[in-house]
Amino acid sequence: MTELPARVSLREVGPRDGLQNEDPIPTAAKVDLIEALSATGLRRIEAVSFVHPAAIPQMADADEVWTGVRPRDSVRYSALVPNRRGLQRALAAGFVDLEVVISASDTHNRENIKRGTDESLAGLPELAELAHAGGATLQLIVSTAWGCPYEGEVPVERVLRVVKQGVAAGVDSLAFGDTTGMATPTRVTRLVGEVRAAHPDSPIGLHFHNTRGTGLANVYAALQLGVDDFDAAVAGLGGCPYAPGASGNIATEEVVSMLEDMGVETGVDLEALLEVAGMAEAYVGHPAPSQVLRAGPRWKTVPRPPAD
Amino acid sequence: MTELPARVSLREVGPRDGLQNEDPIPTAAKVDLIEALSATGLRRIEAVSFVHPAAIPQMADADEVWTGVRPRDSVRYSALVPNRRGLQRALAAGFVDLEVVISASDTHNRENIKRGTDESLAGLPELAELAHAGGATLQLIVSTAWGCPYEGEVPVERVLRVVKQGVAAGVDSLAFGDTTGMATPTRVTRLVGEVRAAHPDSPIGLHFHNTRGTGLANVYAALQLGVDDFDAAVAGLGGCPYAPGASGNIATEEVVSMLEDMGVETGVDLEALLEVAGMAEAYVGHPAPSQVLRAGPRWKTVPRPPAD
Repeated sequence: MTELPARVSLREVGPRDGLQNEDPIPTAAKVDLIEALSATGLRRIEAVSFVHPAAIPQMADADEVWTGVRPRDSVRYSALVPNRRGLQRALAAGFVDLEVVISASDTHNRENIKRGTDESLAGLPELAELAHAGGATLQLIVSTAWGCPYEGEVPVERVLRVVKQGVAAGVDSLAFGDTTGMATPTRVTRLVGEVRAAHPDSPIGLHFHNTRGTGLANVYAALQLGVDDFDAAVAGLGGCPYAPGASGNIATEEVVSMLEDMGVETGVDLEALLEVAGMAEAYVGHPAPSQVLRAGPRWKTVPRPPAD
Repeated sequence: MTELPARVSLREVGPRDGLQNEDPIPTAAKVDLIEALSATGLRRIEAVSFVHPAAIPQMADADEVWTGVRPRDSVRYSALVPNRRGLQRALAAGFVDLEVVISASDTHNRENIKRGTDESLAGLPELAELAHAGGATLQLIVSTAWGCPYEGEVPVERVLRVVKQGVAAGVDSLAFGDTTGMATPTRVTRLVGEVRAAHPDSPIGLHFHNTRGTGLANVYAALQLGVDDFDAAVAGLGGCPYAPGASGNIATEEVVSMLEDMGVETGVDLEALLEVAGMAEAYVGHPAPSQVLRAGPRWKTVPRPPAD
């Protein structure tokens, strides 16, 4: 059997990617959530995004949220930035790990940030330069990497073209987003293989959504390739803006449950994380799609009913 | 990359394992469901179980259901039988593919059929003989093969002991049930490897539940070992009796969606199956946990919203 990585680095994206696709919750709740997540053993948390408040009202209080959080030394907190203005706000707030999302699908990029993919790519060298000048790293997250809700199939070649320009622009690492859960294990294997072949020195992280149930299968496929960097959202927060009722991000507790059982260390205390997942579910006010939140850890047994 | 099987044989278990864990639905609805499933390209359907009506009221009308169904030549229909009486009823009804479930966990077996695992195993040779004398095949389904809701861990050795006695009893094939979704890919790989090493000539099928989100990851792990026989339930019918709100069987349309996208042929028309999944959801009267039912096939695109 293929050797799996001994440990993985999870980035918790519930406070940003998760909450961005839920009805807005109070600033204090966001602060609570980030602090509670910080106590579970998670070592990376995407805390906020510095986007225009008219574009994403859910993130309008990013500065207030971050001011409210007492950060832990054990956690690296990151922020998503859409453009130069957001990047400057993130640096001013003290973030040293930044992410920028560019969609491999031109239609999706235009819907998302009102610019074509090429225009976004043209601005990337400046963003990388500003991030580095400010002492921060910049990750390029390529979204719709396995398909687009508007365009359908996204050829691997288009993803590779975005990656090539990102690497040339000087980004520090790459991530690939399965925006609407269109990836399957063989597609994951192909894309990771091609990106590595072209850019063997670029660190790769993967961001799966469970929109069609394949989230953990894709994680398993990637683990077999040695990928050790995954995004996930506590309680599976976020849903899918294109399919009401469908799942969004893979649930962090489902990832932790599967990985730890397979001997892949995450550093996360699953029982503590499940408490936070319950808190997150209460904050958003509807049942979360996380199966492990419903069923509990696999070591949880039920009492045998009394004999008839 | 590991070569995957070119095709798999799916057994649809929604009408039996699925409906057994839902509130009872009318006989005519069961007939409708079986006939509709038969028209999707599925080639095997577990139609009913012949259990005592006091034990499982949901299956009390098994004879009426089966009398009502107009079977298709393209489909093999099977029945679950708990004991000699049930087996005789199934043969009398004309079934030629029968299944018997024995739990590797003694506690679970007692809760399920009021007998210990050893007692069930002791009766197996007679069941196999009766099935064969009646011109039918008998499959042994080993439940709680990766863990038990009452006992927790179930050692592989206990599963192998059940298998050994089943093979000695003359069963025609083996299946392994992940009764409450405690399997993960490495556990699947280990069990399949050990069973094959001990019984290289016994055909193996796998029956996964998605109770903790790992259902499709387990399918992918098994595919990589060349396993080509899986159970699944339309719409993910069934839930989990031990964890209210948690998923039960993996959803057939999620399996079909992932496999066909990976070039593994199932013979099933996904769009037709999704119509039946919607029908099944309506019959049980609550939202089904199937993600592909919510999100649609991966080739379904959404219209781009009008420009601002």
